[in-house]
Amino acid sequence: MKRIESAKNPQIKQWKKLQTKKGREQTGLFIIEGAHLVEEAAKAQMKFEALLITDESQLDKRWNMDKRHVYIVNGTVIKELSETDSPQGLVAIVQMRALSQNIAARGQWLLIDRVQDPGNIGTMIRTAEACGLTGVILGQGSVDLYNGKVIRATQGAAFHIPVIKADLLQVIDEFQANNIPVFGTAFEDATSFRDIEEQAQFALVVGNEGQGVAKDILSKCKQNLYIPIIGQAESLNVAVASGILMYALKPTRQ
Amino acid sequence: MKRIESAKNPQIKQWKKLQTKKGREQTGLFIIEGAHLVEEAAKAQMKFEALLITDESQLDKRWNMDKRHVYIVNGTVIKELSETDSPQGLVAIVQMRALSQNIAARGQWLLIDRVQDPGNIGTMIRTAEACGLTGVILGQGSVDLYNGKVIRATQGAAFHIPVIKADLLQVIDEFQANNIPVFGTAFEDATSFRDIEEQAQFALVVGNEGQGVAKDILSKCKQNLYIPIIGQAESLNVAVASGILMYALKPTRQ
Repeated sequence: MKRIESAKNPQIKQWKKLQTKKGREQTGLFIIEGAHLVEEAAKAQMKFEALLITDESQLDKRWNMDKRHVYIVNGTVIKELSETDSPQGLVAIVQMRALSQNIAARGQWLLIDRVQDPGNIGTMIRTAEACGLTGVILGQGSVDLYNGKVIRATQGAAFHIPVIKADLLQVIDEFQANNIPVFGTAFEDATSFRDIEEQAQFALVVGNEGQGVAKDILSKCKQNLYIPIIGQAESLNVAVASGILMYALKPTRQ
Repeated sequence: MKRIESAKNPQIKQWKKLQTKKGREQTGLFIIEGAHLVEEAAKAQMKFEALLITDESQLDKRWNMDKRHVYIVNGTVIKELSETDSPQGLVAIVQMRALSQNIAARGQWLLIDRVQDPGNIGTMIRTAEACGLTGVILGQGSVDLYNGKVIRATQGAAFHIPVIKADLLQVIDEFQANNIPVFGTAFEDATSFRDIEEQAQFALVVGNEGQGVAKDILSKCKQNLYIPIIGQAESLNVAVASGILMYALKPTRQ
């Protein structure tokens, strides 16, 4: 174990750059904070570059942490790397997992088209994992997966389910070549989600908070689904809508 | 129309206090920002104490705004009252609507037990309104409805559906006295939401992000529901779970 006493330490300054997308992309590292996320990352055997704690008692044996990567620091150092108001005195630097860019276009997938809010993206990944989907595909123009807010909102689900960046138009072709139905979401020319059967395999495309799924994507889908709106709301929150649709399509009866 | 040129104007200082719960409770006023929320509030005939705009062209005739309540201000004044990074140059001070504290315990209601995140509460109100529920009841210990983040996440739904503060234990007794089934949410002693029929009338109780619904409330419910979790997640986000359950219980087939 090592000690770092100052937020101005050059190593801390390097890690602070991981708060930006550029810093993450240049190093393949990202920051997580709080005991829950550290535990989920350890369980998923993510590789830790560093674990920073303020007190040795925070170190849980089950994390199986290589002591050479553990740093004892003070609260100021934690605050420097944390993006939340009340960091729990626990921050880690974790290696991104190299994911195959070849998606076996089989199974049950959530495809995300240009969703902007990191909390929405994170919640959607959390729900996809909970619902037992095969994976999540982020199209161009969605928020970066390793954004701190996204990772916090996933509650660790991103360590347990493949989250892949890909061109959605191309991916949809691959699903359809494998005879796997691709469902878009739209209000026009669409079927109520209540009138759809559960699907052994599927791809579900959800889209941008204001504009929904892009037209060129919708026109490629086998069928578009909608959720009936009875009140005066113009739409549902995209993470809520995705949750309703994933649980409608995925067979989860035991 | 009047003009206010300085963020230090005493009236602006008074309104700034509405960013706190105490300030809102003392005056019965709250702040909204952005054209969409102003439009929703106007459509719902909420009473405007003031509408602050940076440019007269922002005034939409359909809002039917009493010109005596319109203030032309500069961007600094807007920023002073706004809680977002990119206010759209449009802020309004609106009167809370006096809601009857006598809930006719009939219809379809969402009951919220100690949910802490303002974004979650706002999203749940938005979903309840979209789903056509009768109203939402906030128990003790949930975030204040007029918190700026709650109102923004509702996207205006709070102007279209009753949102009432009440003692949940007492309210549940009233529903049950009227033979309206009250469904809790829990993982133990619970039924999968897939095995429940749509209900003409119901109350659905959802709870705190970490702890769920309080035990004394659960023990009063007619039946507890769960959403199957296939992955490694411990739970779903409460707004997503509420959305899935509201749409499962509410008859929305046309």
